[in-house]
Amino acid sequence: MTSPAATPAYRRLSVEERRTQLLDAALSLFAHRAPEDVSLDDVAEVAGVSRPLVYRYFPGGKQQLYEAALRSAADELELCFAQPQTGPLTERLTHALDRYLAFVDEHDAGFSALLQGGSVAETSRTTAIVDEVRRSAAEQILLHLEVESPGARLRMMVRTWIAAVEAASLIWLDEEKQPPLPELRDWLVDHLVALLTATAATDPQAAAVVRAALALEPADGPAGLLARRVLPVLAEAAHLL
Amino acid sequence: MTSPAATPAYRRLSVEERRTQLLDAALSLFAHRAPEDVSLDDVAEVAGVSRPLVYRYFPGGKQQLYEAALRSAADELELCFAQPQTGPLTERLTHALDRYLAFVDEHDAGFSALLQGGSVAETSRTTAIVDEVRRSAAEQILLHLEVESPGARLRMMVRTWIAAVEAASLIWLDEEKQPPLPELRDWLVDHLVALLTATAATDPQAAAVVRAALALEPADGPAGLLARRVLPVLAEAAHLL
Repeated sequence: MTSPAATPAYRRLSVEERRTQLLDAALSLFAHRAPEDVSLDDVAEVAGVSRPLVYRYFPGGKQQLYEAALRSAADELELCFAQPQTGPLTERLTHALDRYLAFVDEHDAGFSALLQGGSVAETSRTTAIVDEVRRSAAEQILLHLEVESPGARLRMMVRTWIAAVEAASLIWLDEEKQPPLPELRDWLVDHLVALLTATAATDPQAAAVVRAALALEPADGPAGLLARRVLPVLAEAAHLL
Repeated sequence: MTSPAATPAYRRLSVEERRTQLLDAALSLFAHRAPEDVSLDDVAEVAGVSRPLVYRYFPGGKQQLYEAALRSAADELELCFAQPQTGPLTERLTHALDRYLAFVDEHDAGFSALLQGGSVAETSRTTAIVDEVRRSAAEQILLHLEVESPGARLRMMVRTWIAAVEAASLIWLDEEKQPPLPELRDWLVDHLVALLTATAATDPQAAAVVRAALALEPADGPAGLLARRVLPVLAEAAHLL
Protein backbone atom coordinates (compact mmCIF):
# COMPACT_ATOMS: atom_id res chain seq x y z
CA MET A 1 0.00 0.00 0.00
CA THR A 2 1.05 3.55 -0.67
CA SER A 3 0.68 6.27 1.91
CA PRO A 4 -0.50 9.86 1.30
CA ALA A 5 2.26 12.32 0.40
CA ALA A 6 4.02 13.97 3.31
CA THR A 7 2.84 17.47 2.39
CA PRO A 8 0.17 18.49 4.95
CA ALA A 9 -3.17 19.32 3.33
CA TYR A 10 -3.30 22.81 4.87
CA ARG A 11 -0.09 23.98 3.23
CA ARG A 12 -1.10 25.87 0.09
CA LEU A 13 0.96 24.78 -2.93
CA SER A 14 1.60 26.94 -5.96
CA VAL A 15 0.06 25.73 -9.23
CA GLU A 16 3.47 24.47 -10.37
CA GLU A 17 4.19 22.73 -7.07
CA ARG A 18 0.79 21.06 -7.11
CA ARG A 19 1.26 19.94 -10.70
CA THR A 20 4.66 18.46 -9.84
CA GLN A 21 3.20 16.73 -6.78
CA LEU A 22 0.43 15.13 -8.86
CA LEU A 23 2.89 14.11 -11.58
CA ASP A 24 5.21 12.51 -9.03
CA ALA A 25 2.30 10.58 -7.58
CA ALA A 26 1.21 9.50 -11.07
CA LEU A 27 4.73 8.49 -12.06
CA SER A 28 5.19 6.38 -8.96
CA LEU A 29 1.97 4.54 -9.85
CA PHE A 30 2.59 4.22 -13.60
CA ALA A 31 6.12 2.98 -12.82
CA HIS A 32 4.91 -0.26 -11.31
CA ARG A 33 1.56 -0.89 -12.95
CA ALA A 34 0.22 -0.98 -16.49
CA PRO A 35 -1.65 2.28 -17.31
CA GLU A 36 -4.98 0.43 -17.38
CA ASP A 37 -4.46 -0.59 -13.76
CA VAL A 38 -4.06 2.96 -12.45
CA SER A 39 -7.15 5.06 -11.66
CA LEU A 40 -7.43 8.78 -10.90
CA ASP A 41 -8.64 7.73 -7.45
CA ASP A 42 -5.29 6.00 -6.91
CA VAL A 43 -3.43 9.16 -7.96
CA ALA A 44 -5.56 11.32 -5.64
CA GLU A 45 -4.95 8.90 -2.79
CA VAL A 46 -1.18 8.77 -3.24
CA ALA A 47 -1.00 12.57 -3.57
CA GLY A 48 -3.34 13.00 -0.59
CA VAL A 49 -5.75 15.23 -2.50
CA SER A 50 -9.31 14.99 -3.76
CA ARG A 51 -10.22 13.43 -7.11
CA PRO A 52 -11.77 16.74 -8.40
CA LEU A 53 -8.43 18.45 -7.74
CA VAL A 54 -6.65 15.91 -9.98
CA TYR A 55 -9.25 16.60 -12.67
CA ARG A 56 -8.82 20.36 -12.31
CA TYR A 57 -5.11 20.00 -13.14
CA PHE A 58 -5.59 17.30 -15.76
CA PRO A 59 -9.02 17.89 -17.31
CA GLY A 60 -8.18 15.33 -19.99
CA GLY A 61 -8.30 12.67 -17.26
CA LYS A 62 -6.02 9.67 -17.02
CA GLN A 63 -4.73 9.83 -20.60
CA GLN A 64 -3.54 13.41 -20.12
CA LEU A 65 -1.98 12.56 -16.77
CA TYR A 66 -0.27 9.51 -18.30
CA GLU A 67 1.18 11.57 -21.13
CA ALA A 68 2.39 14.27 -18.74
CA ALA A 69 4.00 11.66 -16.49
CA LEU A 70 5.60 10.04 -19.54
CA ARG A 71 6.86 13.44 -20.69
CA SER A 72 8.50 13.97 -17.30
CA ALA A 73 10.00 10.44 -17.34
CA ALA A 74 11.30 11.07 -20.86
CA ASP A 75 13.08 14.23 -19.70
CA GLU A 76 14.74 12.20 -16.96
CA LEU A 77 15.75 9.42 -19.38
CA GLU A 78 17.23 11.86 -21.87
CA LEU A 79 19.52 13.17 -19.13
CA CYS A 80 20.98 9.69 -18.62
CA PHE A 81 23.16 9.88 -21.70
CA ALA A 82 24.11 13.55 -21.36
CA GLN A 83 27.38 13.91 -19.49
CA PRO A 84 30.82 15.51 -19.64
CA GLN A 85 32.77 14.62 -22.74
CA THR A 86 35.92 13.71 -20.92
CA GLY A 87 37.62 10.42 -20.17
CA PRO A 88 37.73 7.16 -22.13
CA LEU A 89 34.64 6.21 -24.17
CA THR A 90 33.91 3.06 -22.18
CA GLU A 91 33.95 5.07 -18.93
CA ARG A 92 31.36 7.49 -20.29
CA LEU A 93 29.21 4.63 -21.58
CA THR A 94 29.45 2.90 -18.22
CA HIS A 95 28.16 6.00 -16.41
CA ALA A 96 25.39 6.59 -18.93
CA LEU A 97 24.24 2.97 -18.77
CA ASP A 98 24.37 3.01 -14.96
CA ARG A 99 21.86 5.86 -14.99
CA TYR A 100 19.69 4.38 -17.74
CA LEU A 101 19.53 0.95 -16.13
CA ALA A 102 18.78 2.47 -12.71
CA PHE A 103 15.80 4.17 -14.36
CA VAL A 104 14.69 0.85 -15.88
CA ASP A 105 15.04 -0.83 -12.47
CA GLU A 106 13.05 1.91 -10.75
CA HIS A 107 10.22 2.08 -13.30
CA ASP A 108 10.11 -1.61 -14.13
CA ALA A 109 6.47 -2.39 -14.87
CA GLY A 110 5.80 1.02 -16.43
CA PHE A 111 8.88 0.70 -18.64
CA SER A 112 7.72 -2.70 -19.90
CA ALA A 113 4.12 -1.60 -20.44
CA LEU A 114 5.26 1.47 -22.35
CA LEU A 115 7.72 -0.30 -24.63
CA GLN A 116 6.06 -3.62 -25.18
CA GLY A 117 3.14 -2.01 -26.97
CA GLY A 118 -0.52 -2.89 -27.04
CA SER A 119 -1.23 -0.73 -23.98
CA VAL A 120 -4.55 1.07 -23.96
CA ALA A 121 -2.73 4.31 -23.16
CA GLU A 122 -0.52 4.05 -26.24
CA THR A 123 -1.22 6.75 -28.82
CA SER A 124 0.74 8.41 -31.59
CA ARG A 125 1.70 11.03 -28.98
CA THR A 126 3.15 8.53 -26.51
CA THR A 127 4.96 6.79 -29.38
CA ALA A 128 6.43 10.15 -30.42
CA ILE A 129 7.71 10.81 -26.89
CA VAL A 130 9.40 7.38 -26.73
CA ASP A 131 10.92 7.95 -30.14
CA GLU A 132 12.25 11.30 -29.06
CA VAL A 133 14.05 9.66 -26.12
CA ARG A 134 15.67 7.20 -28.53
CA ARG A 135 16.79 9.93 -30.90
CA SER A 136 18.12 12.05 -28.07
CA ALA A 137 20.07 9.10 -26.63
CA ALA A 138 21.54 8.43 -30.08
CA GLU A 139 22.59 12.08 -30.41
CA GLN A 140 24.33 11.95 -27.04
CA ILE A 141 26.20 8.76 -27.92
CA LEU A 142 27.29 10.30 -31.23
CA LEU A 143 28.65 13.26 -29.28
CA HIS A 144 30.68 10.84 -27.15
CA LEU A 145 32.11 9.29 -30.32
CA GLU A 146 33.41 12.79 -31.12
CA VAL A 147 32.63 12.75 -34.83
CA GLU A 148 32.21 16.10 -36.55
CA SER A 149 29.36 15.10 -38.87
CA PRO A 150 28.44 11.43 -38.39
CA GLY A 151 27.55 9.63 -41.61
CA ALA A 152 24.58 7.35 -42.25
CA ARG A 153 26.33 4.15 -41.22
CA LEU A 154 27.55 5.50 -37.90
CA ARG A 155 24.13 6.94 -37.13
CA MET A 156 22.45 3.66 -37.98
CA MET A 157 24.99 1.84 -35.82
CA VAL A 158 24.25 3.98 -32.77
CA ARG A 159 20.47 3.82 -33.18
CA THR A 160 20.73 0.06 -33.58
CA TRP A 161 22.71 -0.19 -30.36
CA ILE A 162 20.12 1.94 -28.55
CA ALA A 163 17.47 -0.53 -29.72
CA ALA A 164 19.65 -3.36 -28.43
CA VAL A 165 20.00 -1.66 -25.02
CA GLU A 166 16.23 -1.25 -24.86
CA ALA A 167 15.61 -4.87 -25.85
CA ALA A 168 18.17 -6.10 -23.31
CA SER A 169 16.47 -3.99 -20.61
CA LEU A 170 13.08 -5.51 -21.39
CA ILE A 171 14.53 -9.03 -21.37
CA TRP A 172 16.28 -8.24 -18.08
CA LEU A 173 12.95 -7.17 -16.52
CA ASP A 174 11.30 -10.25 -17.97
CA GLU A 175 13.99 -12.53 -16.52
CA GLU A 176 13.44 -11.29 -12.98
CA LYS A 177 16.25 -8.75 -13.19
CA GLN A 178 19.01 -11.22 -14.04
CA PRO A 179 21.98 -10.94 -14.57
CA PRO A 180 22.97 -8.37 -11.86
CA LEU A 181 22.94 -4.83 -13.29
CA PRO A 182 26.74 -4.31 -13.39
CA GLU A 183 27.12 -7.46 -15.50
CA LEU A 184 24.40 -6.35 -17.90
CA ARG A 185 25.97 -2.89 -18.12
CA ASP A 186 29.46 -4.22 -18.84
CA TRP A 187 28.09 -6.53 -21.53
CA LEU A 188 26.25 -3.60 -23.19
CA VAL A 189 29.49 -1.56 -23.14
CA ASP A 190 31.32 -4.51 -24.75
CA HIS A 191 28.48 -4.72 -27.27
CA LEU A 192 29.06 -1.15 -28.43
CA VAL A 193 32.83 -1.61 -28.62
CA ALA A 194 32.32 -4.79 -30.69
CA LEU A 195 29.71 -3.22 -32.94
CA LEU A 196 31.88 -0.16 -33.50
CA THR A 197 34.83 -2.39 -34.37
CA ALA A 198 32.78 -4.50 -36.79
CA THR A 199 31.42 -1.33 -38.41
CA ALA A 200 35.00 -0.07 -38.76
CA ALA A 201 35.58 -2.92 -41.21
CA THR A 202 33.49 -1.20 -43.88
CA ASP A 203 33.08 2.42 -42.69
CA PRO A 204 36.17 4.69 -42.61
CA GLN A 205 34.47 7.07 -40.16
CA ALA A 206 33.86 4.24 -37.69
CA ALA A 207 37.48 3.13 -38.17
CA ALA A 208 38.68 6.62 -37.21
CA VAL A 209 36.42 6.58 -34.13
CA VAL A 210 37.75 3.18 -33.04
CA ARG A 211 41.38 4.30 -33.47
CA ALA A 212 40.85 7.51 -31.49
CA ALA A 213 38.73 5.85 -28.78
CA LEU A 214 41.03 2.88 -28.20
CA ALA A 215 44.06 5.18 -27.93
CA LEU A 216 42.44 6.71 -24.83
CA GLU A 217 41.40 3.41 -23.25
CA PRO A 218 43.54 2.25 -20.31
CA ALA A 219 44.79 -1.33 -20.36
CA ASP A 220 42.93 -2.10 -17.13
CA GLY A 221 39.63 -0.64 -18.46
CA PRO A 222 36.73 -2.47 -20.14
CA ALA A 223 38.30 -2.33 -23.64
CA GLY A 224 41.60 -3.83 -22.43
CA LEU A 225 39.77 -6.54 -20.51
CA LEU A 226 37.63 -7.33 -23.54
CA ALA A 227 40.65 -7.50 -25.85
CA ARG A 228 42.61 -9.82 -23.57
CA ARG A 229 39.63 -12.10 -23.01
CA VAL A 230 38.67 -12.31 -26.68
CA LEU A 231 42.16 -12.94 -28.04
CA PRO A 232 42.47 -16.58 -26.86
CA VAL A 233 39.04 -17.38 -28.32
CA LEU A 234 40.09 -16.00 -31.70
CA ALA A 235 43.59 -17.49 -31.58
CA GLU A 236 42.37 -20.74 -33.12
CA ALA A 237 40.94 -18.95 -36.15
CA ALA A 238 44.30 -18.03 -37.67
CA HIS A 239 43.19 -19.54 -40.99
CA LEU A 240 40.92 -16.49 -41.47
CA LEU A 241 43.82 -14.00 -41.53
CA MET B 1 -3.81 1.95 -58.54
CA THR B 2 -4.44 -1.72 -57.89
CA SER B 3 -6.33 -3.91 -60.33
CA PRO B 4 -8.91 -6.60 -59.49
CA ALA B 5 -7.43 -10.05 -58.94
CA ALA B 6 -7.01 -12.21 -62.04
CA THR B 7 -9.45 -14.88 -60.86
CA PRO B 8 -12.63 -14.53 -62.95
CA ALA B 9 -15.71 -13.83 -60.87
CA TYR B 10 -17.62 -16.81 -62.26
CA ARG B 11 -15.11 -19.38 -61.04
CA ARG B 12 -16.42 -20.77 -57.79
CA LEU B 13 -13.69 -20.77 -55.14
CA SER B 14 -13.65 -23.10 -52.15
CA VAL B 15 -14.00 -21.46 -48.74
CA GLU B 16 -10.26 -21.87 -48.14
CA GLU B 17 -9.34 -20.51 -51.57
CA ARG B 18 -11.62 -17.52 -51.08
CA ARG B 19 -10.18 -16.83 -47.66
CA THR B 20 -6.65 -16.99 -49.06
CA GLN B 21 -7.63 -14.66 -51.91
CA LEU B 22 -9.07 -12.09 -49.50
CA LEU B 23 -6.06 -12.35 -47.19
CA ASP B 24 -3.68 -11.87 -50.12
CA ALA B 25 -5.62 -8.77 -51.18
CA ALA B 26 -5.60 -7.44 -47.62
CA LEU B 27 -1.91 -8.14 -47.18
CA SER B 28 -1.03 -6.33 -50.41
CA LEU B 29 -2.93 -3.28 -49.10
CA PHE B 30 -1.69 -3.42 -45.50
CA ALA B 31 1.86 -3.85 -46.83
CA HIS B 32 1.98 -0.36 -48.27
CA ARG B 33 -0.45 1.64 -46.14
CA ALA B 34 -1.07 2.17 -42.46
CA PRO B 35 -4.05 0.05 -41.28
CA GLU B 36 -6.15 3.18 -40.77
CA ASP B 37 -5.79 4.00 -44.48
CA VAL B 38 -7.20 0.68 -45.68
CA SER B 39 -10.97 0.16 -45.97
CA LEU B 40 -12.95 -3.02 -46.55
CA ASP B 41 -14.07 -1.43 -49.82
CA ASP B 42 -10.42 -1.34 -50.91
CA VAL B 43 -10.01 -5.00 -50.03
CA ALA B 44 -13.18 -5.92 -51.93
CA GLU B 45 -12.00 -3.94 -54.96
CA VAL B 46 -8.52 -5.48 -55.04
CA ALA B 47 -9.97 -8.98 -54.60
CA GLY B 48 -12.66 -8.24 -57.22
CA VAL B 49 -15.49 -9.24 -54.89
CA SER B 50 -18.36 -7.50 -53.14
CA ARG B 51 -18.01 -5.84 -49.76
CA PRO B 52 -20.65 -8.14 -48.17
CA LEU B 53 -18.55 -11.12 -49.23
CA VAL B 54 -15.55 -9.70 -47.35
CA TYR B 55 -17.76 -9.30 -44.29
CA ARG B 56 -19.06 -12.81 -44.62
CA TYR B 57 -15.51 -14.17 -44.32
CA PHE B 58 -14.40 -11.64 -41.74
CA PRO B 59 -17.48 -10.71 -39.69
CA GLY B 60 -15.20 -8.86 -37.26
CA GLY B 61 -14.52 -6.31 -40.01
CA LYS B 62 -11.21 -4.63 -40.66
CA GLN B 63 -9.62 -5.49 -37.31
CA GLN B 64 -10.24 -9.19 -37.85
CA LEU B 65 -8.96 -8.99 -41.42
CA TYR B 66 -5.88 -7.09 -40.24
CA GLU B 67 -5.09 -9.66 -37.60
CA ALA B 68 -5.59 -12.53 -40.04
CA ALA B 69 -3.32 -10.81 -42.59
CA LEU B 70 -0.74 -10.20 -39.86
CA ARG B 71 -0.99 -13.86 -38.83
CA SER B 72 -0.26 -14.93 -42.39
CA ALA B 73 2.64 -12.41 -42.69
CA ALA B 74 4.03 -13.70 -39.37
CA ASP B 75 4.01 -17.27 -40.69
CA GLU B 76 5.97 -16.09 -43.71
CA LEU B 77 8.46 -14.15 -41.57
CA GLU B 78 9.04 -17.09 -39.24
CA LEU B 79 10.07 -19.19 -42.24
CA CYS B 80 12.83 -16.70 -43.09
CA PHE B 81 15.13 -17.94 -40.36
CA ALA B 82 14.27 -21.63 -40.72
CA GLN B 83 16.74 -23.32 -43.03
CA PRO B 84 19.07 -26.31 -43.35
CA GLN B 85 21.66 -26.48 -40.58
CA THR B 86 24.58 -26.99 -42.92
CA GLY B 87 27.42 -24.76 -44.02
CA PRO B 88 29.27 -21.99 -42.18
CA LEU B 89 27.26 -19.84 -39.75
CA THR B 90 27.72 -16.62 -41.72
CA GLU B 91 26.39 -18.32 -44.86
CA ARG B 92 23.22 -19.39 -43.05
CA LEU B 93 22.78 -15.93 -41.55
CA THR B 94 23.26 -14.36 -44.97
CA HIS B 95 20.49 -16.50 -46.47
CA ALA B 96 18.15 -15.87 -43.54
CA LEU B 97 18.71 -12.12 -43.65
CA ASP B 98 18.24 -12.08 -47.43
CA ARG B 99 14.77 -13.51 -46.94
CA TYR B 100 13.93 -11.32 -43.94
CA LEU B 101 15.07 -8.12 -45.64
CA ALA B 102 13.22 -9.03 -48.85
CA PHE B 103 10.08 -9.28 -46.72
CA VAL B 104 10.80 -5.87 -45.17
CA ASP B 105 11.35 -4.40 -48.64
CA GLU B 106 8.13 -5.91 -49.95
CA HIS B 107 5.92 -4.88 -47.01
CA ASP B 108 7.60 -1.56 -46.29
CA ALA B 109 4.83 0.73 -45.03
CA GLY B 110 2.94 -2.08 -43.31
CA PHE B 111 6.12 -3.25 -41.58
CA SER B 112 6.81 0.27 -40.27
CA ALA B 113 3.23 0.87 -39.16
CA LEU B 114 3.15 -2.46 -37.35
CA LEU B 115 6.44 -2.06 -35.51
CA GLN B 116 6.53 1.64 -34.83
CA GLY B 117 3.49 1.42 -32.60
CA GLY B 118 0.67 3.84 -32.00
CA SER B 119 -1.37 2.32 -34.84
CA VAL B 120 -5.14 2.17 -34.31
CA ALA B 121 -5.04 -1.49 -35.27
CA GLU B 122 -2.54 -2.36 -32.55
CA THR B 123 -3.95 -4.55 -29.79
CA SER B 124 -2.53 -6.98 -27.29
CA ARG B 125 -3.27 -9.66 -29.92
CA THR B 126 -1.22 -7.99 -32.67
CA THR B 127 1.57 -7.34 -30.17
CA ALA B 128 1.53 -11.03 -29.23
CA ILE B 129 1.84 -12.06 -32.88
CA VAL B 130 4.83 -9.76 -33.41
CA ASP B 131 6.43 -11.06 -30.25
CA GLU B 132 5.94 -14.62 -31.40
CA VAL B 133 7.83 -13.84 -34.63
CA ARG B 134 10.71 -12.44 -32.57
CA ARG B 135 10.84 -15.47 -30.31
CA SER B 136 10.65 -17.86 -33.23
CA ALA B 137 13.46 -16.01 -35.05
CA ALA B 138 15.58 -16.18 -31.89
CA GLU B 139 14.92 -19.95 -31.59
CA GLN B 140 16.02 -20.47 -35.19
CA ILE B 141 19.23 -18.48 -34.70
CA LEU B 142 19.99 -20.46 -31.54
CA LEU B 143 19.59 -23.66 -33.58
CA HIS B 144 22.14 -22.32 -36.05
CA LEU B 145 24.56 -21.67 -33.20
CA GLU B 146 24.27 -25.41 -32.46
CA VAL B 147 24.18 -25.16 -28.69
CA GLU B 148 22.59 -28.04 -26.82
CA SER B 149 20.85 -25.95 -24.14
CA PRO B 150 21.59 -22.24 -24.59
CA GLY B 151 22.08 -20.34 -21.34
CA ALA B 152 20.56 -17.01 -20.34
CA ARG B 153 23.39 -14.89 -21.75
CA LEU B 154 23.36 -16.53 -25.17
CA ARG B 155 19.59 -16.28 -25.35
CA MET B 156 19.68 -12.61 -24.38
CA MET B 157 22.41 -12.03 -26.96
CA VAL B 158 20.36 -13.52 -29.79
CA ARG B 159 17.15 -11.70 -28.81
CA THR B 160 19.12 -8.47 -28.58
CA TRP B 161 20.50 -9.03 -32.08
CA ILE B 162 16.98 -9.73 -33.41
CA ALA B 163 15.91 -6.36 -31.95
CA ALA B 164 18.91 -4.75 -33.64
CA VAL B 165 17.96 -6.31 -36.99
CA GLU B 166 14.42 -4.99 -36.58
CA ALA B 167 15.63 -1.51 -35.66
CA ALA B 168 18.06 -1.46 -38.58
CA SER B 169 15.22 -2.49 -40.92
CA LEU B 170 13.01 0.35 -39.70
CA ILE B 171 15.86 2.87 -40.06
CA TRP B 172 16.57 1.49 -43.54
CA LEU B 173 12.93 2.07 -44.56
CA ASP B 174 13.04 5.51 -42.99
CA GLU B 175 16.23 6.40 -44.90
CA GLU B 176 14.66 5.66 -48.28
CA LYS B 177 16.04 2.13 -48.37
CA GLN B 178 19.69 3.08 -48.06
CA PRO B 179 22.27 1.50 -47.97
CA PRO B 180 21.61 -1.16 -50.69
CA LEU B 181 20.21 -4.36 -49.15
CA PRO B 182 23.35 -6.53 -49.61
CA GLU B 183 25.40 -3.95 -47.68
CA LEU B 184 22.87 -3.81 -44.86
CA ARG B 185 22.73 -7.61 -44.78
CA ASP B 186 26.53 -8.01 -44.62
CA TRP B 187 26.73 -5.43 -41.83
CA LEU B 188 24.08 -7.29 -39.82
CA VAL B 189 26.01 -10.55 -40.26
CA ASP B 190 29.18 -8.78 -39.05
CA HIS B 191 27.13 -7.42 -36.16
CA LEU B 192 26.22 -10.91 -34.95
CA VAL B 193 29.79 -12.19 -35.36
CA ALA B 194 31.08 -9.20 -33.36
CA LEU B 195 28.41 -9.52 -30.68
CA LEU B 196 29.03 -13.24 -30.34
CA THR B 197 32.76 -12.59 -30.00
CA ALA B 198 32.24 -9.86 -27.38
CA THR B 199 29.89 -12.16 -25.46
CA ALA B 200 32.54 -14.90 -25.62
CA ALA B 201 34.69 -12.68 -23.37
CA THR B 202 32.46 -13.38 -20.38
CA ASP B 203 30.33 -16.40 -21.36
CA PRO B 204 32.02 -19.80 -21.81
CA GLN B 205 29.11 -21.10 -23.88
CA ALA B 206 29.46 -18.21 -26.33
CA ALA B 207 33.21 -18.83 -26.45
CA ALA B 208 32.58 -22.46 -27.45
CA VAL B 209 30.15 -21.31 -30.15
CA VAL B 210 32.68 -18.82 -31.55
CA ARG B 211 35.45 -21.43 -31.64
CA ALA B 212 33.27 -24.01 -33.39
CA ALA B 213 31.72 -21.49 -35.80
CA LEU B 214 34.99 -19.84 -36.85
CA ALA B 215 36.60 -23.23 -37.47
CA LEU B 216 34.03 -23.78 -40.24
CA GLU B 217 34.32 -20.31 -41.78
CA PRO B 218 36.30 -20.14 -45.02
CA ALA B 219 39.02 -17.48 -45.29
CA ASP B 220 37.22 -15.84 -48.22
CA GLY B 221 33.87 -15.73 -46.40
CA PRO B 222 32.36 -12.87 -44.34
CA ALA B 223 34.22 -13.81 -41.12
CA GLY B 224 37.60 -13.87 -42.87
CA LEU B 225 36.91 -10.58 -44.59
CA LEU B 226 35.83 -9.03 -41.30
CA ALA B 227 38.91 -10.31 -39.47
CA ARG B 228 41.33 -9.03 -42.12
CA ARG B 229 39.63 -5.62 -42.30
CA VAL B 230 39.43 -5.13 -38.53
CA LEU B 231 42.99 -6.18 -37.77
CA PRO B 232 44.71 -3.01 -39.08
CA VAL B 233 42.25 -0.82 -37.15
CA LEU B 234 43.08 -2.65 -33.92
CA ALA B 235 46.83 -2.85 -34.62
CA GLU B 236 47.41 0.53 -33.02
CA ALA B 237 45.79 -0.53 -29.74
CA ALA B 238 48.57 -2.93 -28.72
CA HIS B 239 48.75 -1.19 -25.32
CA LEU B 240 45.48 -2.95 -24.40
CA LEU B 241 46.95 -6.43 -24.74
